[in-house]
Amino acid sequence: MSAYDSLLARLNEISHVGKAAAILDWDHQCYMPEGAAEARAGMLATLGKLSHEMFVSDETRKLLESAEGEGHAPGSDGGLTLRAVRRDFDKSVKLPTKLVSDLARETALGHGVWAKARAEKDFSQFAPALERILELTRQAGECYGYDKQSGEIYDALLDNYEAGAKTSEVVTVFEGIRPGLIELLNKIKAAPQVDFSCLERNFDEAAQLKFAEKVAARLGFDFTHGRQDRAVHPFCTSFTRHDVRITTRTEKNWLPGALMGTIHETGHGLYEQGFDPKDDDTPLSDAVSLGVHESQSRLWENIVGRSRPFWHVFYPQLQAAFPGTLTDTSEEGFWRAINRVEPSFIRVEADEVTYGLHIMLRFEIEREMLNGTLAVKDIPDAWNAKMESYLGITPPDDALGCLQDVHWSAGLIGYFPTYLIGTALSSQLYEQALKDSPNIAQDLVKGEFSSLLSWLREKVHHPGRRYLPQELITRICGEPARSEPYIRYLNTKFTEVYGL
Amino acid sequence: MSAYDSLLARLNEISHVGKAAAILDWDHQCYMPEGAAEARAGMLATLGKLSHEMFVSDETRKLLESAEGEGHAPGSDGGLTLRAVRRDFDKSVKLPTKLVSDLARETALGHGVWAKARAEKDFSQFAPALERILELTRQAGECYGYDKQSGEIYDALLDNYEAGAKTSEVVTVFEGIRPGLIELLNKIKAAPQVDFSCLERNFDEAAQLKFAEKVAARLGFDFTHGRQDRAVHPFCTSFTRHDVRITTRTEKNWLPGALMGTIHETGHGLYEQGFDPKDDDTPLSDAVSLGVHESQSRLWENIVGRSRPFWHVFYPQLQAAFPGTLTDTSEEGFWRAINRVEPSFIRVEADEVTYGLHIMLRFEIEREMLNGTLAVKDIPDAWNAKMESYLGITPPDDALGCLQDVHWSAGLIGYFPTYLIGTALSSQLYEQALKDSPNIAQDLVKGEFSSLLSWLREKVHHPGRRYLPQELITRICGEPARSEPYIRYLNTKFTEVYGL
Repeated sequence: MSAYDSLLARLNEISHVGKAAAILDWDHQCYMPEGAAEARAGMLATLGKLSHEMFVSDETRKLLESAEGEGHAPGSDGGLTLRAVRRDFDKSVKLPTKLVSDLARETALGHGVWAKARAEKDFSQFAPALERILELTRQAGECYGYDKQSGEIYDALLDNYEAGAKTSEVVTVFEGIRPGLIELLNKIKAAPQVDFSCLERNFDEAAQLKFAEKVAARLGFDFTHGRQDRAVHPFCTSFTRHDVRITTRTEKNWLPGALMGTIHETGHGLYEQGFDPKDDDTPLSDAVSLGVHESQSRLWENIVGRSRPFWHVFYPQLQAAFPGTLTDTSEEGFWRAINRVEPSFIRVEADEVTYGLHIMLRFEIEREMLNGTLAVKDIPDAWNAKMESYLGITPPDDALGCLQDVHWSAGLIGYFPTYLIGTALSSQLYEQALKDSPNIAQDLVKGEFSSLLSWLREKVHHPGRRYLPQELITRICGEPARSEPYIRYLNTKFTEVYGL
Repeated sequence: MSAYDSLLARLNEISHVGKAAAILDWDHQCYMPEGAAEARAGMLATLGKLSHEMFVSDETRKLLESAEGEGHAPGSDGGLTLRAVRRDFDKSVKLPTKLVSDLARETALGHGVWAKARAEKDFSQFAPALERILELTRQAGECYGYDKQSGEIYDALLDNYEAGAKTSEVVTVFEGIRPGLIELLNKIKAAPQVDFSCLERNFDEAAQLKFAEKVAARLGFDFTHGRQDRAVHPFCTSFTRHDVRITTRTEKNWLPGALMGTIHETGHGLYEQGFDPKDDDTPLSDAVSLGVHESQSRLWENIVGRSRPFWHVFYPQLQAAFPGTLTDTSEEGFWRAINRVEPSFIRVEADEVTYGLHIMLRFEIEREMLNGTLAVKDIPDAWNAKMESYLGITPPDDALGCLQDVHWSAGLIGYFPTYLIGTALSSQLYEQALKDSPNIAQDLVKGEFSSLLSWLREKVHHPGRRYLPQELITRICGEPARSEPYIRYLNTKFTEVYGL
């Protein structure tokens, strides 16, 4: 057995521990009885500690060094695997095991605290937990290290979710996107608003789930290697490409929640189910970054799932799924309704035009909260002030404000920018897909999704973790990530929706 | 920190890995998509290997030896804990890690193979998997060791489930029970059969679950520290006393399946929820044996749940839960129906009188299958012949015969006898409970279960794993396990049910 093969076997075992933790986390969010939170946190802390210890151990280091000495060519699968593992290893060894297990414990506990604070609309209940998580995250940032001249500790965290990305680049990209969004939003505000009352009727919740799962299956989600459950905050998690779990929530009087939410998570799920079978049980069978992940969910949710052709195919089925509920709403009217633009409080329910502003707000706040210029206690005020400034509305309570997202309670700080990076990327990828395979557009009109999925499988899913995000994008599109396709897409679409 | 405290901390981490595996197994049986079986087996193999390696490591051994040198008095909690850990340690070090992970993998894979074979009523599909599991189990038996003079390899496995029990003792106990069962069964066969058609009507399955969970809560099952889900084969599992999972299955035209099944699993669940809070995160917070575990489920299911007073309380509520379905059935008629005795194919549906014969059959078959006197391919014939001989009926197919139980696919060989040991014990414990607290019988008539539960908490649950099973029974009853109370209970009850 080569050192490389031994390394892969060991990494596979380590990944089993990490995947076990992911299953515990899924259970935590979907089924665990509330009284088990403390005990579950202890288990997650142990698993976090264990997989960290196994990864940074001398045994792994020696295997990695020996494998690196075996002469795997830089661009070969072996070379690309070793590069990815070396990158992870060099980061992980910087974290003390205690910090890893403390973070696992605090974030497992944080979820329940956050959920309760959110239910009771009271940020002050969550603040102490957030202080602890933030302090541990800062320690992690210091351990990873960052450019002391820039003083940008956010860089150290961002790299966990978007390898190689810098905070300053995010600022540049966001500043590039902002004027286009504002300009479009102002035009829309001046136009007559669309009627969306058809989305607020009584939709049986079991029927919502059933219809959403039918759509997911049509798009290509494989329910023999995945499933959907309910969760407070929808997410997608994966325990190998053979077992991908998406989650959703339903609301009787709000159809898009479960419906568009499921299509979004299906996009994530298709990515996780789509890694190359030959990469099974290797580090390559993994997502390249959260931005690329989000490009998949947003592409299916918005570019496909909120398109005219999509609803031309599915609207009659939707009407049939809710007998009598949508008879007086035309296909055109429904399509406009689900594309309505209106500043609102909740990010995951936000329309495509204001969505970016929600992300910019979060990015700015967490950057300041991390570098200490914003105190935790001042987060609600800062949040509300930015909401007023960017969107012209002020959340009436913290549940509709700074408590709405699960991320901080889970220690996911530096994660939010990837939502907008990915959203912008979805347009760029879709433009490229149409260039490479012009038949995709016609297939979508016919309700055939396999040509788009095949293109994504080949270009995005199969490469797995072979490349850094920017390398992958350049390989696919012939140029790095750009935000123009995104603004172009929005302008084209909403000019049509609003008759601008 | 004393060596004892360090040992407990380490054991707690090891138990976290084992509990994570239990969560993966629960998910496997309740929710996992079928395509994930192979990947899940790999994860379980790694976790099994890891917890084994951690437990038998030099680090654990040294901590155990140091703790033993600290002079914890034999009967103290420390002394009892160290005795239990030493027993486990001395057994575990005998097993090579590879065997542990091979067993974990084969049994994880075995579940799917068994489920498919059962669904298709074809033992031959399961035979190769059973051969592999049996061979690995034999290897484990040889590693544990057993008295070579008796040649009883079954002893080595039995001890895993009923510490200290010997196969020859089981034979003696079963031979002691058998004549009483046969005699009673023959009397019942000569009496007019009771009408049980009321149990085969149309019972809405969601309403079945709802009612069963209401009963479970009334008995004391804490749903903030536990939950119920559906599974192919009902079971109870626990991830600490804060998170106890019971499962059931429903059948539209068979009320007792989910109803009595839930009460049975509730009995297990009450035990798991009932360990002493001061034993949290220690090896004492665990069941003493499977026999004692089963005594709890059978006590609640049969002695309480099939009693007249129980249905005097619950029957009106049951009638209300299924409007119009039971209006023409009297409380008395219903009580007789759920106590009907009739030889049948499925163990978990068997009545109280024939149940023991189902267990004896399994015990005899697996003893021979383990020592090699019965070939795997001959199991269906051996099974059917014994069914004919003991119960006078022959299963029409393997699903109703030797494929009905999940145990062998899970590597649980040596486990079956504990069902009858526990069932007999339930009568002995209940007699003792009435002696200690005569008010229990009157409370049950009033639908108050807390006095019985309190007695069980104090006598059975709180001691946890302090004692060996026979020690515990002697402490509670002043004498070792005896089967007379069981035969006495059956005779009294069924004389009444059948007017013998």
